[in-house]
Amino acid sequence: MTSTSRREFVQATALSLIAATTTTAALQASEDKPMPNSAFDYQHAPAALPFAAKALNGISEKLIQSHWQNNYSGAVTALNTVRGRLKQALSDANTPAYLYNGLKREQLIRTGSVVLHELYFANLGGDGKTSADLRTKVAVSFGTFDAWESEFRKIGQGLGGGSGWVVLGFNEKLKLLENYWMADHGTAPADTKPILVMDMYEHAYQMDFGAAAAKYIDAFFVNINWDTVAQRL
Amino acid sequence: MTSTSRREFVQATALSLIAATTTTAALQASEDKPMPNSAFDYQHAPAALPFAAKALNGISEKLIQSHWQNNYSGAVTALNTVRGRLKQALSDANTPAYLYNGLKREQLIRTGSVVLHELYFANLGGDGKTSADLRTKVAVSFGTFDAWESEFRKIGQGLGGGSGWVVLGFNEKLKLLENYWMADHGTAPADTKPILVMDMYEHAYQMDFGAAAAKYIDAFFVNINWDTVAQRL
Amino acid sequence: MTSTSRREFVQATALSLIAATTTTAALQASEDKPMPNSAFDYQHAPAALPFAAKALNGISEKLIQSHWQNNYSGAVTALNTVRGRLKQALSDANTPAYLYNGLKREQLIRTGSVVLHELYFANLGGDGKTSADLRTKVAVSFGTFDAWESEFRKIGQGLGGGSGWVVLGFNEKLKLLENYWMADHGTAPADTKPILVMDMYEHAYQMDFGAAAAKYIDAFFVNINWDTVAQRL
Amino acid sequence: MTSTSRREFVQATALSLIAATTTTAALQASEDKPMPNSAFDYQHAPAALPFAAKALNGISEKLIQSHWQNNYSGAVTALNTVRGRLKQALSDANTPAYLYNGLKREQLIRTGSVVLHELYFANLGGDGKTSADLRTKVAVSFGTFDAWESEFRKIGQGLGGGSGWVVLGFNEKLKLLENYWMADHGTAPADTKPILVMDMYEHAYQMDFGAAAAKYIDAFFVNINWDTVAQRL
Repeated sequence: MTSTSRREFVQATALSLIAATTTTAALQASEDKPMPNSAFDYQHAPAALPFAAKALNGISEKLIQSHWQNNYSGAVTALNTVRGRLKQALSDANTPAYLYNGLKREQLIRTGSVVLHELYFANLGGDGKTSADLRTKVAVSFGTFDAWESEFRKIGQGLGGGSGWVVLGFNEKLKLLENYWMADHGTAPADTKPILVMDMYEHAYQMDFGAAAAKYIDAFFVNINWDTVAQRL
Repeated sequence: MTSTSRREFVQATALSLIAATTTTAALQASEDKPMPNSAFDYQHAPAALPFAAKALNGISEKLIQSHWQNNYSGAVTALNTVRGRLKQALSDANTPAYLYNGLKREQLIRTGSVVLHELYFANLGGDGKTSADLRTKVAVSFGTFDAWESEFRKIGQGLGGGSGWVVLGFNEKLKLLENYWMADHGTAPADTKPILVMDMYEHAYQMDFGAAAAKYIDAFFVNINWDTVAQRL
Repeated sequence: MTSTSRREFVQATALSLIAATTTTAALQASEDKPMPNSAFDYQHAPAALPFAAKALNGISEKLIQSHWQNNYSGAVTALNTVRGRLKQALSDANTPAYLYNGLKREQLIRTGSVVLHELYFANLGGDGKTSADLRTKVAVSFGTFDAWESEFRKIGQGLGGGSGWVVLGFNEKLKLLENYWMADHGTAPADTKPILVMDMYEHAYQMDFGAAAAKYIDAFFVNINWDTVAQRL
Repeated sequence: MTSTSRREFVQATALSLIAATTTTAALQASEDKPMPNSAFDYQHAPAALPFAAKALNGISEKLIQSHWQNNYSGAVTALNTVRGRLKQALSDANTPAYLYNGLKREQLIRTGSVVLHELYFANLGGDGKTSADLRTKVAVSFGTFDAWESEFRKIGQGLGGGSGWVVLGFNEKLKLLENYWMADHGTAPADTKPILVMDMYEHAYQMDFGAAAAKYIDAFFVNINWDTVAQRL
């Protein structure tokens, strides 16, 4: 954890403690009970779209609003609910470990959905134009910027008709900038910082493009916010 | 990416370029070909065990050596081979995207295996004693240190008889320190820094403990290198 | 295998031998080579829609045609291609087993997609009216017909926004008629005969209903061909 | 469903009704409640090993007993528990569909474990000798019997160090006899009758063979009960 993220962590923990204390009266700390805490009590609030829903080029306001409302916000609600059930299950001595893990699996999947959707929306809303500096950085890892783009698009194309994500990520352990194929919200490369995230679930494009995943990928590239990407890198 | 990891990235990329250039004569850059590069040409070298194989308390030398050699080093070999096949497939215009993704899936799984095994071995070889400072940090997120340990062990217990990992990780997006259940090498929470990693594949314990996963979890805790964990946190 | 299915098996094998022999000149049997055979050489031909694409009530011709053409027929093409690659890989002594399994995984997934889509289309195109006899049979296993329908719909609802299938199936080993949740084409209960199959991939409804999975489930029930279901049962 | 399996189905349903009525006093049918029924109330009893645990050639009594007790019987217990929780969850109007599906997922996985383990034990305990008739039947689909065996072993080898199953199965829809790779208990080809089942979870061999999966595959073949296989085919 860097010093910045440690500071953010402490702040976020404090905020979540306040939220947990305020919103969950039943969880008031007493002498024999643990304090409200982030791992079990945290409740996530949906992040607003970082651009106007109608601002994208070739992706409709209707689709983006449905995506944000039904898929992203739905995942936030589900994650918050699952966290409540986990707390309940953990305090019940009759919960077999394999049933507890059934809930942890849901937590993992919903966490992936919340995190990846926030990163996805945040790397949209731009003009799709890359700076020379960023192209060079990508080229260092992929030979050329075009070689990177070509692989990224190919992975997306292969996910058409199903579900999944394409992620350009920096693997902190291997010190590699790579493209990753991810089957669903729960699939991810370990210890990897997502740099550019493309949603390939059919809800990301069917409403506008039907089964034409390639047209959606074109539209995605037109709307990439490369400033956000450069900051992550 | 922090400035430290950016520096490491540039260094690692440079090293991998040297390695790629040296070991892969056929990939010499020419005018019309991309330079050797880390994303497609990188070949990983297995990291040595960070402790003597016979040094662990209650986990046998034979098991650790088999784990390192057959499971970890095997994954390194597989990852390197998959990368070669990916390069081949990408240069062949007849490769359908769904077949390319079949290889990307293998890359993801082997990457997870390599990364998680390295983190796992690196957080073993200690004396299992936690500092007051670290206990406090964990308690901030989990209410008490014992609440953390109890959930971490429960997830491990629920994975007995199958495969998977238990990870205490710091979710960089949600700013949460949480325990995660992971079904296999390809499952992971997005954008999360692993802090403590426990292998629950049966090859991590069957040879010494048979089906008694709980005994292995006890032995794992006795051997945790909490200094490594504290540094990651 | 029953005597009927054994007869169908022999017929199908013969047909696939003919197909393989005819279409794959390079595979002509010679003295030292195995005969063309179904497991490695079989090429599947897409089954036509068993009803007019515009015949459904509340599910559009456009969606059904796209579903049949892009998703189902696409899976047939992919399965046939994968089979060719498997044959190639098996004959190459340099194919590591884990890479061969990467292709077997694709075969499994595409096989599931082909089989489930054919069963799905075949149990649509009806008037949604159940006979008293069938209601009774279902009630024997589920208490009441409504209890069955309620669970079947709930599983579908829970799959909204992602991918998967809901299957009423007869488990041949446990001798149970049950509803199953299936995450994707490769997930299925072992040794189970599908009786009623509902596609919950977003391509089955997004084009007509957007994210409103519940409305699609209503439309699905209106169009069930219960005669087909009764024959399978 | 064939007439034989329909008769078995009615018998099994009747038996499960009796079992449910007898063992679950709280579920006594009253006027306004559904009758006890197999889909929600069924409780599975573990099947005894179909051979003496010490009878196998090269696979130890200790391993087989642990496999039967900890992995197979454990799955039966888990499946029965999950079914109880499903009934509870279904009767609670506050259960979100996605949480219900978390339990259905566990049901699917445990069902696969129970069914596949029973098929696995039932196709062991033999002398490994194939009849000419069976070799011919397999050769019709695979070109030669050796081609079948070679692919079956290769899939097993590729699963070494992880989890999964290898299944020779008859796909009822495609009318194909094929080998399938299966990642875990929840993975399976749709609408397929398992003919020969090999467990590749590490608990099937680590205790006797360590990481040497190939030696276990040899031992498996020596102990196949081909009479059982022939009956299934």
